[in-house]
Amino acid sequence: MIYDLIIIGAGPAGVSAAIYASRQKMNFLLVSKDMGGQIGKKAVDIENYPGFEKISGSDLIKTFEEQLKKNNIEPVFDEVLKIEKVENIFKISTSMGENFESKTVIITTGGDPRPLEAEGEKEFIGKGVSYCALCDGPIFRDKTVAVIGGGNSGFETAGFLANYVKKIYILEFGETAKADQENQKYILESGKVEIITSAKVLKINGEKFVNSLTYLDRKENAEKKLEIEGIFVEIGYSPATAFVKDLVDFSERDEIITDLETYATKTPGLFAAGDCNKGKYKQIITAAGEGAKASLAAYDYLSHLRTNE
Amino acid sequence: MIYDLIIIGAGPAGVSAAIYASRQKMNFLLVSKDMGGQIGKKAVDIENYPGFEKISGSDLIKTFEEQLKKNNIEPVFDEVLKIEKVENIFKISTSMGENFESKTVIITTGGDPRPLEAEGEKEFIGKGVSYCALCDGPIFRDKTVAVIGGGNSGFETAGFLANYVKKIYILEFGETAKADQENQKYILESGKVEIITSAKVLKINGEKFVNSLTYLDRKENAEKKLEIEGIFVEIGYSPATAFVKDLVDFSERDEIITDLETYATKTPGLFAAGDCNKGKYKQIITAAGEGAKASLAAYDYLSHLRTNE
Repeated sequence: MIYDLIIIGAGPAGVSAAIYASRQKMNFLLVSKDMGGQIGKKAVDIENYPGFEKISGSDLIKTFEEQLKKNNIEPVFDEVLKIEKVENIFKISTSMGENFESKTVIITTGGDPRPLEAEGEKEFIGKGVSYCALCDGPIFRDKTVAVIGGGNSGFETAGFLANYVKKIYILEFGETAKADQENQKYILESGKVEIITSAKVLKINGEKFVNSLTYLDRKENAEKKLEIEGIFVEIGYSPATAFVKDLVDFSERDEIITDLETYATKTPGLFAAGDCNKGKYKQIITAAGEGAKASLAAYDYLSHLRTNE
Repeated sequence: MIYDLIIIGAGPAGVSAAIYASRQKMNFLLVSKDMGGQIGKKAVDIENYPGFEKISGSDLIKTFEEQLKKNNIEPVFDEVLKIEKVENIFKISTSMGENFESKTVIITTGGDPRPLEAEGEKEFIGKGVSYCALCDGPIFRDKTVAVIGGGNSGFETAGFLANYVKKIYILEFGETAKADQENQKYILESGKVEIITSAKVLKINGEKFVNSLTYLDRKENAEKKLEIEGIFVEIGYSPATAFVKDLVDFSERDEIITDLETYATKTPGLFAAGDCNKGKYKQIITAAGEGAKASLAAYDYLSHLRTNE
């Protein structure tokens, strides 16, 4: 069977795309290695998804699951390893050895913040270690925190956190912070920020919750310790998009480049919505909006295919 | 006082922008003539907003209101009549005589489908008369319906409805339907569609629910009647954007033209999200996503203003 559409990934973008595909009566498949994508990894309750004053990641995923069920959508839990396009048909192979064929594909495989790979990091996720200041910043009110990474996103994170926290250390691996000077100047004027360069984070310490971090001062070749209660990791981002590399163009951060109205990639019939694409703002609600748009665009694409047959 | 941001409109885009502005600690105002925008006018339950399997428009508005309250946001209920930009500051005047000043503005005033202005139309909204096939189509399963308007959106609507209904009349005011030939050909092949040209809808008839419509056959100059149970009006769309005409460019449909990543208009600091902009797909979830993006973009714009001061 050749499907109208295969959606890869079941985070907010994939679920939204599936709901719209169902309402458009498309013959489609939702394939994902997990349910909920990054929502399932969230450390704190979600307070910025319009419609829910406050909801845990796992509860939001439950509502998604119920909504899929109501629309008779049964996700196939499997990992897509490869997509090829042969004569207008996408051929998809998975880690469980399945082969699917479809006229259109929407990729919503998200991505993950790059981890530090420091000792204690995994252990303290949700207990002081965060990869999303926008999500988790407000709970660190009046505390001392560290931001790891001295690029623009590290400084922007510090600028946001300065609204809440008492003091912020920015730790940069290199000899100088790479963020724009204007950006640095403004952030430093808050009076709350101290920059530590040539710093390699070695270990995150704590009991129930983070209480300090140990770093190597690479200039002095000495281990040092900082008393902090929160750590925001801002050293980059890895979209899960390698499996589609022959069919799309990537940004310098491996994000899929798409049109921003239809989320179409350079390959006709192939779309990418949510965190895996180059869109600047990556939020649950923006991913859900993009998934709906990509699904409607896939439907339009199929209509045009049919009228030109 | 000069605000950081004024959001105009409190539909899904405006509410989403406000939630994000609040979390970014912006000093902002939410000004709207009503709460919920078009959601409040929906005829049937909402089943395509991810997170809610099924929710009435009024209940979704209630969740928005609670979420605003939780974020200490009190909407100002007033209508914006004019926006000017004077030396980097937006000056906003309202129908109740208020004058507000702000560094950035997000317009989320939505728009409305153009009504037929036929007798009985208003009376039967939600009782057979619909302006949104995507929302309301599924409840007309196996019924006979009319689509008013023979342009592309009329034919696309008919193509969508063909998944559900038994028969569709497309009524076109002019002598020929204006939709693309390919589009027409494909829709007609469904075998469910009959086109009636030179038709001016005069009256919508029914008791509790629509049961027929009366139209003028403009060629024969005779009144005729069609037995139908649903009417989908697709004769265009009027964004509520006239008040901002000196600061933005418009599409041919009076939609505000924006960048599609940040939703910035041609006037720095002025953004437009949701149905009032030129985006192709206009859904509740897409409006909410765009509102979040515009709010984050307004925050970034302010950061850049500050660093360049």
